[in-house]
Amino acid sequence: MRVTQPLLRNRQQRPTAVASIDGNRTYTWDELVSRIARLASGLKALGLKEKDRVGVLALNSDRYMELLFAVPWAGGIVVPLNHRWSSAEIAFAVADSDMRIICVDETFENTALEVVESVDHQLQIIGIDGSVKSAKTHVDGLADKQTECPEKQSSQDDVSGIFYTGGTTGRSKGVMLTHGNHVSNTLQFLSIIDMTEESVYLHAAPMFHIADALYVYMVTHIGGKHIFIPRFEPALCAQAIQDHKISDIILVPTMIQMLLEQPNFKDFDFSSLQRLYYGASPMPEAVAHDLVNKFPWVKCFQLYGQTESAPLLTALDSKYHNTSNQNQGRMKSAGRAMPAVELKIVDENGEEVPRGQIGEIIAKGPNIMKGYWGQDELTSKTVKDGWLHTGDAAHMDEGGFIFISDRLKDMIISGGENIYSTEVENALYEHNDVAQCAVIGIPDDKWGESVHAIVVPREGANPSTEDLISHCRKLIADYKCPRSISYRTEALPLSGPGKVLKTELRKPFWEGKERQVN
Amino acid sequence: MRVTQPLLRNRQQRPTAVASIDGNRTYTWDELVSRIARLASGLKALGLKEKDRVGVLALNSDRYMELLFAVPWAGGIVVPLNHRWSSAEIAFAVADSDMRIICVDETFENTALEVVESVDHQLQIIGIDGSVKSAKTHVDGLADKQTECPEKQSSQDDVSGIFYTGGTTGRSKGVMLTHGNHVSNTLQFLSIIDMTEESVYLHAAPMFHIADALYVYMVTHIGGKHIFIPRFEPALCAQAIQDHKISDIILVPTMIQMLLEQPNFKDFDFSSLQRLYYGASPMPEAVAHDLVNKFPWVKCFQLYGQTESAPLLTALDSKYHNTSNQNQGRMKSAGRAMPAVELKIVDENGEEVPRGQIGEIIAKGPNIMKGYWGQDELTSKTVKDGWLHTGDAAHMDEGGFIFISDRLKDMIISGGENIYSTEVENALYEHNDVAQCAVIGIPDDKWGESVHAIVVPREGANPSTEDLISHCRKLIADYKCPRSISYRTEALPLSGPGKVLKTELRKPFWEGKERQVN
Repeated sequence: MRVTQPLLRNRQQRPTAVASIDGNRTYTWDELVSRIARLASGLKALGLKEKDRVGVLALNSDRYMELLFAVPWAGGIVVPLNHRWSSAEIAFAVADSDMRIICVDETFENTALEVVESVDHQLQIIGIDGSVKSAKTHVDGLADKQTECPEKQSSQDDVSGIFYTGGTTGRSKGVMLTHGNHVSNTLQFLSIIDMTEESVYLHAAPMFHIADALYVYMVTHIGGKHIFIPRFEPALCAQAIQDHKISDIILVPTMIQMLLEQPNFKDFDFSSLQRLYYGASPMPEAVAHDLVNKFPWVKCFQLYGQTESAPLLTALDSKYHNTSNQNQGRMKSAGRAMPAVELKIVDENGEEVPRGQIGEIIAKGPNIMKGYWGQDELTSKTVKDGWLHTGDAAHMDEGGFIFISDRLKDMIISGGENIYSTEVENALYEHNDVAQCAVIGIPDDKWGESVHAIVVPREGANPSTEDLISHCRKLIADYKCPRSISYRTEALPLSGPGKVLKTELRKPFWEGKERQVN
Repeated sequence: MRVTQPLLRNRQQRPTAVASIDGNRTYTWDELVSRIARLASGLKALGLKEKDRVGVLALNSDRYMELLFAVPWAGGIVVPLNHRWSSAEIAFAVADSDMRIICVDETFENTALEVVESVDHQLQIIGIDGSVKSAKTHVDGLADKQTECPEKQSSQDDVSGIFYTGGTTGRSKGVMLTHGNHVSNTLQFLSIIDMTEESVYLHAAPMFHIADALYVYMVTHIGGKHIFIPRFEPALCAQAIQDHKISDIILVPTMIQMLLEQPNFKDFDFSSLQRLYYGASPMPEAVAHDLVNKFPWVKCFQLYGQTESAPLLTALDSKYHNTSNQNQGRMKSAGRAMPAVELKIVDENGEEVPRGQIGEIIAKGPNIMKGYWGQDELTSKTVKDGWLHTGDAAHMDEGGFIFISDRLKDMIISGGENIYSTEVENALYEHNDVAQCAVIGIPDDKWGESVHAIVVPREGANPSTEDLISHCRKLIADYKCPRSISYRTEALPLSGPGKVLKTELRKPFWEGKERQVN
């Protein structure tokens, strides 16, 4: 099992079928595979050795997909980078993974240059195309010139990619995913959905995220067609669905809401849509209902998983997406364990809890990561006897449906992005005027939650909100920074073992509202 | 990945859904899994140790399926035995695998007793049920008494079953299939078909054969329903399809022909059928057309593979099953490589041949066997660098569709020319007087081998050799036409899946001589 194997299969079976369309660029499978094989040659000519890490920092494009395949084709390890991160955060991943090459588009050229400045080791910049002026070479040039490189016959246990994920303990972790992890998750999910080689998928969600990356592998496995837009924008997305007769798309709930609520929604033809997948953050009930009402012919799938499970663990089948009461409110569920996934809800001693009782989700399967890059201890704490400890709290009903009650209960989900409160707190704590702080999610009509900080200033200090926020901006991505701050003089409420009781802090903000936590 | 894992999943998700129906016995998933876990306890109480081999020699039943799961659940290795074999052939497999326990039904009790007599080591007989009087204990009793045994957490590389194959080239071989082989093939095939938990499968083909055994794993994986009939009989099969609203069934071409041609075909309701799978032997064109005409609403899949590939390598999608000329005669093809299967047609030096040229099929994938039991040398000759050498000759068209011409060992080499026996047989079958035929190579001093046909004439017909040969000359090249023909009234000897046993037919001609095969 190799992520690159279906490329050979598509070339053998459907060489002249269209594989990808990005703007006015269209490639057949034969052309695409040839480009990937030549790009792999080009990367090797630049000095890429087996298992070398190659980063990608870019908006969505066919070039991005070519890199996701070309790097493992050449025997390297691809590292998709979250382009919403600050350059300091990206520099951390670059240094941590000892990255040798970073591929960047025009949009993130400056960020990449800052990163190159800040890391100690040699890091080559490659442009996604000729518009990246500071790069000596670019993907297009590499793929145009070289002869084809033979596909590296990796074993299924070889790592093909490292996906950095925000750490709850501050520093982010590089999740090592193998060829077998990706291909297994692909086959597991394809076994329960009807995608075929006629399917047309729109990459609208960011490709650096494992949720969209899954479809890079899955659509290729089934021999379908890839369509790209650089980033999610409601009108752009709707237009692409209409123009390319998109059948399949994954979006986060915020994107779905924006798609459904755009003013000229009725002007677009969405009739080609067959399957719509969503996940990564809680789905507000109103949006779910709106979705089902506006797209009654579309099969909707709610998905749950983690980067560590490559990523899918559960799926809520389309037949449970209806607004009647027939299905005992299962539309709020994240669904059931997928084929070849074992899933249990356990207590703190690792014992399975009775149905209905909340505990931690643990899971086992061929899609569970090899481990965290360079963090053996953390790996062995997270994956025990093959069981991934998700850190997510949920209960399971009699039919095996899981209901996630508290995803790392302090995590804030704003506009589909996970924001780890400890990370924001760490930034605040670096400000001299902050004695104590806690960061929580508070209700926000547009983003679901917004980041709120509660600060106890040092004696005699009187920091301004503006000052604290701009301080944070220097350390972490803009979307993670507090939107509002409240101040108190008394110490924060603590639990027995000394943890800040965030549940208490959240209460006044959520009175009369139900916090949707995943 | 374990073959037994989906049992846990079904118990978790659909405990009260019906899992199996055999006659008047119905079990829910909860009941079935409990039976399997208790049967595993019972087997251990009888002395079963890890990796011990347990044989099954029986007609189809729910008990058979319980054994297929209970043995690996207990950590053992299950060995389904071909009940069409002679007791001497079965004794070979029993001795070769050093089998400790053999489970047998009433039908094969005497065979089992002969086998026990003839082998040197201790072999316990277990009855499928109480009707096997010579057995001290039986499956039903074991499962009724014991407490549940925890499922053995096997690794995906552990062998879960040994399937004895071929007697066609002399001694039979024990194909070792791992948990990962079975689960991979299951997911690979499910990824391209629409089976769901609503699917209802009829075990009509013999369960000892890997083709039906695949569905034991596959239907369980998707949480569908298993229905059993003891053996294929056209009326019994049709009745079961009607009574149980069967949606899925695998049959060999001979069975399909019998099902379609039974006198009271029109009396049955086949409307529940959704997918019909066939393979294991060549499909006569007339039968394929009859199938498509009589079941126009059914999706038909032609499958090709070997026991060594657990078993599927290719599938011909239903959309190529039509009698129009739209698909360039692809209805005669065995289809294209399945997801995660790599497949090539190579010459004797292992080099890929151009499309359209005949060569040997070789294949790679997660479903390729671990090896032949106790035959490392043969294993390394058969699986080289992960590539299974199938011994089947075929060509591939521009769309990756393969067309199987012959088993390499059935290919006749006469005067240096390769002659594919199936091609000659197809020519003979077009003659009205031919009911059944087989074409083999017999020793020839001048040409090495010469083409010999064995013909079973239709009742009342008495074709002349001269007439048959001149008929063939009109259809195929002169050098391919039979040089001699012998006639018989009794049917040709068949293997389990309905293949003509050419080894048997060749024997009298080759006595005292060694046949050179590739």
